[in-house]
Amino acid sequence: MKVTVLGLGSMGTALAGALLEAGHETTVWNRSAGKGEALAARGAARAGTAAEAVAASPLVIACLSDYDAVDGVLDPLAETLRGRTLVNLTSGTPEQARESASRAAARGIGYLDGAIMSTPPGIGSPQVMLLYSGSSQAFAEHRETLASLGDPVGLGEDAGAASLYDTALLGMMWATLGGWLQGVALTGADGVDAATFTPVAVRWMTAVSGFMSTYAPQVDAGAYPGDDATLDVHFATIEHLVHASAARGLDPRLPELFKTFVGQAIAAGHGGDSYARLIETVRAGGRA
Amino acid sequence: MKVTVLGLGSMGTALAGALLEAGHETTVWNRSAGKGEALAARGAARAGTAAEAVAASPLVIACLSDYDAVDGVLDPLAETLRGRTLVNLTSGTPEQARESASRAAARGIGYLDGAIMSTPPGIGSPQVMLLYSGSSQAFAEHRETLASLGDPVGLGEDAGAASLYDTALLGMMWATLGGWLQGVALTGADGVDAATFTPVAVRWMTAVSGFMSTYAPQVDAGAYPGDDATLDVHFATIEHLVHASAARGLDPRLPELFKTFVGQAIAAGHGGDSYARLIETVRAGGRA
Repeated sequence: MKVTVLGLGSMGTALAGALLEAGHETTVWNRSAGKGEALAARGAARAGTAAEAVAASPLVIACLSDYDAVDGVLDPLAETLRGRTLVNLTSGTPEQARESASRAAARGIGYLDGAIMSTPPGIGSPQVMLLYSGSSQAFAEHRETLASLGDPVGLGEDAGAASLYDTALLGMMWATLGGWLQGVALTGADGVDAATFTPVAVRWMTAVSGFMSTYAPQVDAGAYPGDDATLDVHFATIEHLVHASAARGLDPRLPELFKTFVGQAIAAGHGGDSYARLIETVRAGGRA
Repeated sequence: MKVTVLGLGSMGTALAGALLEAGHETTVWNRSAGKGEALAARGAARAGTAAEAVAASPLVIACLSDYDAVDGVLDPLAETLRGRTLVNLTSGTPEQARESASRAAARGIGYLDGAIMSTPPGIGSPQVMLLYSGSSQAFAEHRETLASLGDPVGLGEDAGAASLYDTALLGMMWATLGGWLQGVALTGADGVDAATFTPVAVRWMTAVSGFMSTYAPQVDAGAYPGDDATLDVHFATIEHLVHASAARGLDPRLPELFKTFVGQAIAAGHGGDSYARLIETVRAGGRA
């Protein structure tokens, strides 16, 4: 397949490298010169202009600094892009993705918005997820080529979905790493190395993932039976965490936030419900 | 093997059931009568007194309401317990576990303190972790029998470790579920079911676990090279989460807390470091 990559920052360079690795005829372009020499040595064609780069391939992947940069480069090339597929892996908001998708549709350009759930060194691994949303037709057509970059996960026709999932998944990452750091600090205060605690923590995450899978249908049904563990039970054990953290002089903010969340729901009469009940609080802007 | 279970709440009943299932000669006791009929029908011996129950087996598992209840039942039976092993699966603090261990040692009782990382229905599955800390000799001797309850994970001689890990792991659970709920609410606001989002979230947790494994040695070394993603980069994407949550009327507290955490570390000059740098803030009680 012929593929073009616009933007040769560290991520764009990794993307082009993975495409070359998979044997695709890869054209690369970067706004400022001097990038892409290593890629050229591996067989990439370096285009002198963005127009030339776009014209070279039916599949154009953009990985630029932001959506303004994408618009600046590609708006003048709408005619060249017509009939091609643009996969926009530039970071942005769901709203920006939806606007780009509707403009692309009006111009006869196949459009996929994407999010890369990896740092550059992970690119090319089938373990890594790349999220795509937008034209299902474009996704079906190019899925195999995109698989060179990492496992392609299709999220449907709402072009904003990839960006929205990206934000949601990163939120889960910060939360999880925050909880892990609290656990590392807690066990560390009593002499346990992070390298000793972490394998147990990693194994535990499999169980926690199981709880998510249990609670997802509760959220969708709007019914939260506390048959595994009630918010009342959670509250008592959260107090252990609050006290154990305080006794070791650790940051109280994350444990206190759990306590506030769960305490609110109990005060509102939901102490017999499962942890999934807290979705109502999140949705209500913080009111239980 | 002969095993005794003291306490027939829902967890004690599940523990005794798993022991019977594995073919162990199981004696059960509960303070109030009328419990354990179903277990007796499956072959358990019901002891009339705690003394009789303790005398029946070299391995005694206690799963009572709290440490005061354990002391109330077992302090008068110290002589009967001498030379036997007591596995205390009652919930408590590391300090309580350590105190119980030192008293048991003084009385010639083998002592293990444990934490059950499961609800009762999971008991007996090798997927489930039970954490044990205290006498390594007792753990080695009874490991095979304890494996009937779930996978036994030994945490070494500090009897407080099981309780401390328990608290730390539950903290990770609340944090992770909190992040998941934020993600469910975020994607849900744009029409995505929790059951649709969650499989992608579960898969992502594998990647996040990988980040923990990457960051653990950074924490132990006290050096946090930001070669995968710097706190500066995290801050920019956390702002996306804050804005996306606000735009959908969602609870801002968890995203705002990440922003505060990361913002503090950046203000203190650590913007080029990895996320693992935040361990210093947690350890310092919230000061970056």
